[in-house]
Amino acid sequence: MLKGKVGRVCFFRLIEGEDLTEAIKKRAEESNIEAGIFFIIGALKNAVLGCYKSGQYESIRLTGPLEIASCIGNIAVDEKDEMVIHAHLVVSNEKGKAFGGHLMKESYVGMTAELAIIEAVGVNLLKVFDEKTKLKLLRLS
Amino acid sequence: MLKGKVGRVCFFRLIEGEDLTEAIKKRAEESNIEAGIFFIIGALKNAVLGCYKSGQYESIRLTGPLEIASCIGNIAVDEKDEMVIHAHLVVSNEKGKAFGGHLMKESYVGMTAELAIIEAVGVNLLKVFDEKTKLKLLRLS
Amino acid sequence: MLKGKVGRVCFFRLIEGEDLTEAIKKRAEESNIEAGIFFIIGALKNAVLGCYKSGQYESIRLTGPLEIASCIGNIAVDEKDEMVIHAHLVVSNEKGKAFGGHLMKESYVGMTAELAIIEAVGVNLLKVFDEKTKLKLLRLS
Repeated sequence: MLKGKVGRVCFFRLIEGEDLTEAIKKRAEESNIEAGIFFIIGALKNAVLGCYKSGQYESIRLTGPLEIASCIGNIAVDEKDEMVIHAHLVVSNEKGKAFGGHLMKESYVGMTAELAIIEAVGVNLLKVFDEKTKLKLLRLS
Repeated sequence: MLKGKVGRVCFFRLIEGEDLTEAIKKRAEESNIEAGIFFIIGALKNAVLGCYKSGQYESIRLTGPLEIASCIGNIAVDEKDEMVIHAHLVVSNEKGKAFGGHLMKESYVGMTAELAIIEAVGVNLLKVFDEKTKLKLLRLS
Repeated sequence: MLKGKVGRVCFFRLIEGEDLTEAIKKRAEESNIEAGIFFIIGALKNAVLGCYKSGQYESIRLTGPLEIASCIGNIAVDEKDEMVIHAHLVVSNEKGKAFGGHLMKESYVGMTAELAIIEAVGVNLLKVFDEKTKLKLLRLS
């Protein structure tokens, strides 16, 4: 288990056209947040959702406008001490129909999006490359 | 960026028939919470989901019973110092089919719903009217 | 209202094949967490989603692989001082299609899943059996 204390709670408005994954990473880096959980609501121009299958994510591409009905994720670091953003997404279209999956690159922010990060301090949230799944997984202890 | 400290964590049971947006606002006001993020699970009698399009939210009306599969939002204030509740919702019907969007008024609580608010203190979470989008957007800094 | 202070923030990797509800309960128990809210992203082999109807949850069974697009819940105790896990789930299939509902037993973790718990301290989050709904509901005050 990885236990920490709750640090700051930080809010950010994301800007139209930003790559959602990059936008999260940028805000976390600028705020010197090394570990935490985050939540986003807002809109996307388009979404690339990943579905894990045999060692890789297959992409599902949706064109917008889309609402970010939910986006939950965590901020960690890998063995090279580089930040790893892991987020899952639920988006909905103009009819309200919902789609979900792993947040992939090239999902661009729509009119606006609001990011809230709850920082975790005193915890080394390390992601380690796992040979079996080909994913960077949270270390177990 | 808007940084604060985490204050209290407050839990509330919402009552059958309450307007979900009003219910969140009421609980936050009664608890003197001026900024924070919240999470709801429970049930709705019906849902009105908004999808943003050219300066306004178009309504998608769903009749229930529905499960609140996810509801994430934030509590802020506008320039008149009035509370602004912004939440996005994922609901599901009797077949499990999911729908999502912006939480609109006239979405009424079903049998029960549980609200958890994480208070943010020492931060002025201000929403400013934006001429372009016609929305109250989180200020940028 | 039930107010507490925020305690620790704990992260856990869940293991392939674990019953998701049991896995959450086990981690909370091992960490002596008596109240809190939690968030999960990851994958499921299958999902059993509940939709509340006339005093009971009807089950919707989905076969995977599925992504856990969102899972939000809370940790409380009942009148016998036993832990009660209440969570709602959004899952998505290989086409990205999303389904939601109440997390039921026999939903098994897929390749991996990441659980983050925000502990609430100084609050007695009590669930009381309610005759009308046949559910254990959060006490009102």
